[in-house]
Amino acid sequence: MLVELKQRLREITDLNAAGDLLNWDQATYMPQGGAGAHGRQRAILNRLAHERAVEPALGELIDRLTRYGENLPYDSDDASLIRVARRDFQKKIKIPSDHVERATAHFSSSYDAWTRARPGNDFATMAPYLERTLNLSREYSSYFEPYNHVADPHIDDADEGMTAASISGLFGELKLQLVALARAICEQPAADDASLRQTFAKAAQFDFALHVAKSLGYDLKRGRLDLTHHPFSTRLSAGDVRITTRVSENDLGDALFSTLHEAGHAMYEQGISAELDGSPLGQGVSAGVHESQSRLWENVVGRSRGFWEYFYPRLQRIFEEQLSRVPLGAFHRAINKVARSLIRTDADELTYNLHIMLRFDLELKMLEGQLRVTDRADLGIAPSDDRDGCLQDAHWYSGYIGGRLQSYAIGNILSAQFYAAALKMHPDILHEIATGEFGTLHTWLAASLRRTISSSARPAR
Amino acid sequence: MLVELKQRLREITDLNAAGDLLNWDQATYMPQGGAGAHGRQRAILNRLAHERAVEPALGELIDRLTRYGENLPYDSDDASLIRVARRDFQKKIKIPSDHVERATAHFSSSYDAWTRARPGNDFATMAPYLERTLNLSREYSSYFEPYNHVADPHIDDADEGMTAASISGLFGELKLQLVALARAICEQPAADDASLRQTFAKAAQFDFALHVAKSLGYDLKRGRLDLTHHPFSTRLSAGDVRITTRVSENDLGDALFSTLHEAGHAMYEQGISAELDGSPLGQGVSAGVHESQSRLWENVVGRSRGFWEYFYPRLQRIFEEQLSRVPLGAFHRAINKVARSLIRTDADELTYNLHIMLRFDLELKMLEGQLRVTDRADLGIAPSDDRDGCLQDAHWYSGYIGGRLQSYAIGNILSAQFYAAALKMHPDILHEIATGEFGTLHTWLAASLRRTISSSARPAR
Repeated sequence: MLVELKQRLREITDLNAAGDLLNWDQATYMPQGGAGAHGRQRAILNRLAHERAVEPALGELIDRLTRYGENLPYDSDDASLIRVARRDFQKKIKIPSDHVERATAHFSSSYDAWTRARPGNDFATMAPYLERTLNLSREYSSYFEPYNHVADPHIDDADEGMTAASISGLFGELKLQLVALARAICEQPAADDASLRQTFAKAAQFDFALHVAKSLGYDLKRGRLDLTHHPFSTRLSAGDVRITTRVSENDLGDALFSTLHEAGHAMYEQGISAELDGSPLGQGVSAGVHESQSRLWENVVGRSRGFWEYFYPRLQRIFEEQLSRVPLGAFHRAINKVARSLIRTDADELTYNLHIMLRFDLELKMLEGQLRVTDRADLGIAPSDDRDGCLQDAHWYSGYIGGRLQSYAIGNILSAQFYAAALKMHPDILHEIATGEFGTLHTWLAASLRRTISSSARPAR
Repeated sequence: MLVELKQRLREITDLNAAGDLLNWDQATYMPQGGAGAHGRQRAILNRLAHERAVEPALGELIDRLTRYGENLPYDSDDASLIRVARRDFQKKIKIPSDHVERATAHFSSSYDAWTRARPGNDFATMAPYLERTLNLSREYSSYFEPYNHVADPHIDDADEGMTAASISGLFGELKLQLVALARAICEQPAADDASLRQTFAKAAQFDFALHVAKSLGYDLKRGRLDLTHHPFSTRLSAGDVRITTRVSENDLGDALFSTLHEAGHAMYEQGISAELDGSPLGQGVSAGVHESQSRLWENVVGRSRGFWEYFYPRLQRIFEEQLSRVPLGAFHRAINKVARSLIRTDADELTYNLHIMLRFDLELKMLEGQLRVTDRADLGIAPSDDRDGCLQDAHWYSGYIGGRLQSYAIGNILSAQFYAAALKMHPDILHEIATGEFGTLHTWLAASLRRTISSSARPAR
């Protein structure tokens, strides 16, 4: 029976992976004319995966295996698999197939429209898409009624057990301290980051970012780096976890830190035991834990002084003209400049969380219907155009709204905790980083996170 | 009912297209580690497409529509659709799903192994794959018993109505004249093609090939060019028909002519009415007609004197050092050099057909069991290693054996006929080509071939 369960779950995973390849393709190489059929193809794959995920025979199999699983050690792979399969089944059975197909087709065409609307600063085109996305997001939540907040079902999908209320509590606490800290820093003279805004050849930036990702431990035999509009990572299987980036000629940080971020996600996935491939255990345990890995490599490691003691001389050799007269200290301050800014993904470590809280708040209000998509919220800072405002992120134009952004802030919190735990076990890590060695940290993270997976799907907190 | 039929066929087409994207990915960007899961993903998509293609409800729908279709004009889209759907259903219903899944998984891993075995000149690794491919090919044929020849079901899939016997007849006739012609030419001093064997920067070759494909009318808004091991074209939808090529630093013809070849395939697909997208009518009518288009652009146009009157000065500007002292006449003779050679895809127009006949013969003998995969046939010419011999082509390592290669020779015959018909209607075409204009030929071919589609699936000849 367990063999049959694994076989069924593998088929669902494989169908989803085929759909993920369609998404990767849309965001990297697909010619413009492919958009229409892409949406259809994506929708039918999602629907088929969903149909298989809710087959009564699967439910019966899980029912019959539940007792068996309860007698196994709680953290064993098989017990965890049965538990996670049960949780997923109980969720998915509530969602009608036709909703899945409609939503997928909509997200595909919305993303396609966004890739043109953003450069064109054309929010008018996107407003009806966003409206429909909100309706689909509410419709999704309705299948999980009763809930306390309309965003709760989305939040639970990303970070199991959390709710709008618990996140608001967490954010409230964090905000008090962050705002005070940001204010104190902003009263000081700002760091000078003009050195990052010179002209840097795109190909050389791309190559350097890839070189750094490889040094950290991102395995290119099981991955690759490509260009896209909005960077992401995607797992097609244990042996194929891809990352993407974007390169700005006048912003040295863009390609570099987005690549480190996505490499963090990908190294997490590459670290998961290959034996779990094709099963729901063979992927990140939650969006927050996932973001903890991306933010850890991007910020905690990637903006640290030691890291650049090793890499900065190498970067200077590549961009000699631009950086030879910029000392390490100045560069290190530049990449850590704290400032109010418009673009979330480019924000510094400190204000980033404030971006998230603001967006989370906007999302809840939009879902509740208190804020309409054409309303202009007064945030005390107004973008000069929508490219840097409501069009900045792919998130609102490629999937449900209400349960994704909070994971970044949760990830930031966890990243600091993971890093502190790693240093406590292996104080040498600091020294290693400064000599371009990342093996101890990489291995410790992989080993520690491998365990979080099989502990997932604990009874709701 | 017709609406439901179209909906069902669209879903099958879309599932197949998602599988085709997996194949494109495997042959272009997939990292090495992705091979295992790719095979699983490909196999499940093929099985699902097959299951849908043989659903009893689809058969009943086609049965109920057949009378209606017979009362429509024979060449109308709807009548053709019902007829083609009926033909496909009657074929597919004979093939068990598990065969489809086994065969797909095998072809995926066989192709993966070939991409490493060919550079390593390692036929020993491939021999068991080839053996299994032959078994699967025979198994496939067995579902269509009784047949006259074990290759007939495969040939019929590619070029409906043709058989091993009819092709052997055709080839026998052609061979007599080709061999005499080849012999007569080979008695003359051979053309000097050393100018093509200099060193040519790969990126510049790629860009030039893409530029030429675009000039011929290949629409990059609905396509793209990428690198691969063995060039192919693939249609993901009417709006997304991609081509691939390979570039050899020491062979100027490789990237150029393989790109023209694949662009020929792709322009045929791009020329098909977008209204037929997602239906079995929305693709080439037969492998032979498909090859007629690739070979027409590659050879009949692409190796003609007029074509190079326009393009050669442009090519000379790009490779000034290598070509400035090579006159047009010498270049034109070099790209049309006739010689005995080892690699089919690089062969000249004349001996190419002899390659095909030889392979076709070997395939029939292997299928019949008269020749084993480890036998060495005495062909009067022996490759120095297997890279240039039995490992040269992806065909034997990526799909059924016995029904694909003949289409190239059929295509060569048809390409001459199509071109003669086009010139008869529009004698200006010759002059246009010499001035870099391809619109008349391109438009005439698209208009003429659009018609062949809806006439497909005539009663067996």
